Formats: sequence, structure tokens, C-alpha cells
Amino acid sequence: MKATVHIFLKAGVLDVQGKAVEGALNGLGPVQGWGGVSNVRVGKVLEFDLTATDKAAAEAEVKAMCDKLLANTVIESYRIEVA
Amino acid sequence: MKATVHIFLKAGVLDVQGKAVEGALNGLGPVQGWGGVSNVRVGKVLEFDLTATDKAAAEAEVKAMCDKLLANTVIESYRIEVA
Repeated sequence: MKATVHIFLKAGVLDVQGKAVEGALNGLGPVQGWGGVSNVRVGKVLEFDLTATDKAAAEAEVKAMCDKLLANTVIESYRIEVA
Repeated sequence: MKATVHIFLKAGVLDVQGKAVEGALNGLGPVQGWGGVSNVRVGKVLEFDLTATDKAAAEAEVKAMCDKLLANTVIESYRIEVA
């Protein structure tokens, strides 16, 4: 099975990388910058293959991986897709 | 409109971060590690709001942003979703 994990900083945590990207986009662009861009959030995405064949078991396994290694659950939230 | 951009290293480029995550997952896990995990790829994901209201125009705008700033198109590929 193929798993996809999205990891973002939680809503209340300042995303400095996102702010930097937003500033850069606002300063670039064809005429006076892409000023219409706002609320930029930068996260990580992981894609990997799993040998598990049962979807529920695979989801539980990926959830354990996120809690134990992939995400810092104090400041980050994650979203799992298994297909 | 809300744009989501996924940026990954191209298939032929060694993803050392992915390899590190794969090694860590194989060494962790409840019994002898999550050995069933393979082909880990780590990428970036950006989410932001756009003032553009036309979907095609927004997609073209985001594509220009990716080519100009967000992705290194020599080694990275990107995928755009606008909704």
C-alpha cells in the first residue's frame, strides 16, 4: 500500500518559513509582485510504500510512525492518507 | 482560491532525507522495526490563499511562482492543486 503523510505546524504556531515565502512572493511577480498571496504555510510531505495489505492496519501503523518519529506532535499536526 | 503545491525531488535524484527516514523507521517500531517501509520520498508542501477568482488564471499564476521561486526545476518537480 502507498502512504502519504502531510505534516504542518499547528495553526497557532508561527510559520516563519511560510512568512518568508510570502514575503518573497509579494516582492516578485510580473508587475508589482504576487500581492494576492496570503496565509502561506509550509509543511512536509512523505510518501512511502508499505507491505501491509489491510488498510486499517496500515493506517494504525502509519499513525504510530507519525507519533513516534515523523512529527513533533507538540507543535505539528499530521494528516495520513493510505491507498 | 486555495492553492496547494507539492514539491518533490525528481525520480532520478537521490533523496537522502528519505533514505534517512527509511533507515530510522526500519530501526524503530514495536518489535523489530517497521521493516515493511520502502521508497520513502520526502517533499515540501505549500498551502496558501490567492485573491484570483478564475481557476485557470490562478493555476497559471501558481505555475509561474513555482518556476520562478518555489521549486528548483533542475532537480525538483512540482504538482499544483487549485480549489
